[in-house]
Amino acid sequence: MSVTQQKDDKEFKRSPSHFTDRITADGSSPWPVEPGRYRLVVSRACPWASRAVIVRRLLGLEEVISMAITDPIQDERSWRFTLDPDDRDPVLGIRFLSEAYQKAEPGYDGGVSVPAIVDVPSGRLVTNDYHQITLDLSTEWTAQQRPGAPDLYPERLRDEIDAVNEDVFRDVNNGVYMTGFTRDQEAYEQRFRRLFDRLDALSERLEHRRYLVGDSITEADIRLFVTLVRFDAVYHGHFKCNRSKLTEMPVLWAYARDLFQTPGFGDTVDFDHIKRHYYYVHHEINPTRIVPLGPDLRGWTTPHGRESLGGRPFGDGTPPGPVPTTERVPDLA
Amino acid sequence: MSVTQQKDDKEFKRSPSHFTDRITADGSSPWPVEPGRYRLVVSRACPWASRAVIVRRLLGLEEVISMAITDPIQDERSWRFTLDPDDRDPVLGIRFLSEAYQKAEPGYDGGVSVPAIVDVPSGRLVTNDYHQITLDLSTEWTAQQRPGAPDLYPERLRDEIDAVNEDVFRDVNNGVYMTGFTRDQEAYEQRFRRLFDRLDALSERLEHRRYLVGDSITEADIRLFVTLVRFDAVYHGHFKCNRSKLTEMPVLWAYARDLFQTPGFGDTVDFDHIKRHYYYVHHEINPTRIVPLGPDLRGWTTPHGRESLGGRPFGDGTPPGPVPTTERVPDLA
Repeated sequence: MSVTQQKDDKEFKRSPSHFTDRITADGSSPWPVEPGRYRLVVSRACPWASRAVIVRRLLGLEEVISMAITDPIQDERSWRFTLDPDDRDPVLGIRFLSEAYQKAEPGYDGGVSVPAIVDVPSGRLVTNDYHQITLDLSTEWTAQQRPGAPDLYPERLRDEIDAVNEDVFRDVNNGVYMTGFTRDQEAYEQRFRRLFDRLDALSERLEHRRYLVGDSITEADIRLFVTLVRFDAVYHGHFKCNRSKLTEMPVLWAYARDLFQTPGFGDTVDFDHIKRHYYYVHHEINPTRIVPLGPDLRGWTTPHGRESLGGRPFGDGTPPGPVPTTERVPDLA
Repeated sequence: MSVTQQKDDKEFKRSPSHFTDRITADGSSPWPVEPGRYRLVVSRACPWASRAVIVRRLLGLEEVISMAITDPIQDERSWRFTLDPDDRDPVLGIRFLSEAYQKAEPGYDGGVSVPAIVDVPSGRLVTNDYHQITLDLSTEWTAQQRPGAPDLYPERLRDEIDAVNEDVFRDVNNGVYMTGFTRDQEAYEQRFRRLFDRLDALSERLEHRRYLVGDSITEADIRLFVTLVRFDAVYHGHFKCNRSKLTEMPVLWAYARDLFQTPGFGDTVDFDHIKRHYYYVHHEINPTRIVPLGPDLRGWTTPHGRESLGGRPFGDGTPPGPVPTTERVPDLA
């Protein structure tokens, strides 16, 4: 995502996704499912993009949908391919993600956000609809998924998953941004309380069950995970979500570690990208642009003990294989 | 203290105390020890002033040296008496501490800092020398101290206390400011490492002994305490001293709680003043001026278990009596 701070308003507002085309399996949209045709553009810093990175890994879609990783630091032209040779994405041949937006809508002057799916042949942006992208990977791309891919959005559990996702989005995923960007003390306190009330409720829900919905990993866990994994590294200090660290909330901390240590989760997380992005880009709340050395992240790989709650991480499926060499995240220091 | 950010330099520098007169018992200075003559001006937010607040309490000098408490929020005229009726200190009759500085040196245009001791009859500032003020309360005011006042700066331990104080000042008391105010990433990282290396060394020193020097509370403990008590509330997030919270450093956390729960320490601490001061006044590092709701401070009053290390908190002395009604800090929420 990209963040829009309304200058004339003290409250933070998230821009709605603008490009909401869908890639479908049944020909109901102009964009058919087709291996090798689309490129997923992400930032590893971004929680909304990270959902898609995890889902793509869990479903084994790495060979089917290629992935471009942007520099964690946007400049005034937004997301850049400055990690690639010649500062250009080697597949799309562009230097800025905005070029794909322009191809889709010449003259477009709205926000440029990740995750974005780009049609490789035309270079056009297809969608930046972060809510729908992962659901479509789960439901439209089934024929392309690896053998043993889990069902992350099982039909019989969709109502429950959607309901959890709605609460988690409002109070947690987006809640941390609302807490961190407001310039109004009262609004801050209200959002802070909602956030921690929700985390307390989630903690209670997860005390005796391993996953949020059903007994296997679903989309709901992925959406909560991407915020939890950033909590102490950025939200706690940078967004002043500081009633307690994640490490001080024992159930959620064990739950987050359990997922982190599950193939497809922790192996997609780049704490360096996460920290540099938030602390550098949001100069309006961190004018010094100093990136903190803390917190000590070694706890993420410690035993979590959640196996005793039962559950089958991948349901009837299996864990994903190793991360493709070209997509490996450097080890924690 | 007041903080000087050098605009043309990325490194934070602390202004030296400018007024270094001493109040003495033997007539060696123009300012004789005299009950009722001087007023100690402090901010409860300020760690340097808090040293003096604690020492005055422990030595029972409350009736001998009166105390003025400033608003935790300075304006462009620096420390203000806006907590008092008519925004005026009732004893000195002034609205700004700077008026006492002007009386001492007409035309003075340097920093205005607390702690400050003001001569009540003339309204002149005597000293803002925060290193010397507490030592003189201990050594020059002995005849005025309460029965049972502890010796916080015992002669036989002074070399050791001075040596500990020097390390603690450089790396911890002032170290947190150096860490938090720099705008240079490399300088930040260097200071951060020195800070936590020092905290680790202090933790090791305190693992098997209750206090820093000798087996009773000394000036050294007071100087370390004033930084530790602010650590999670402000330095962890606001100054990016975030390798770990104090609550995550078990020895130092127990040591700090032990002192907090000792009469004369916790009963002088106002977390509301501390948080509002730092987060509001330093708008160059917190431009939104939002004051965080966290952290959860209830842990401060939990058992610390340090009694088992032995030690005699007040040596041959006794604990101070209750806080005078007019100086009570409102309870933690």
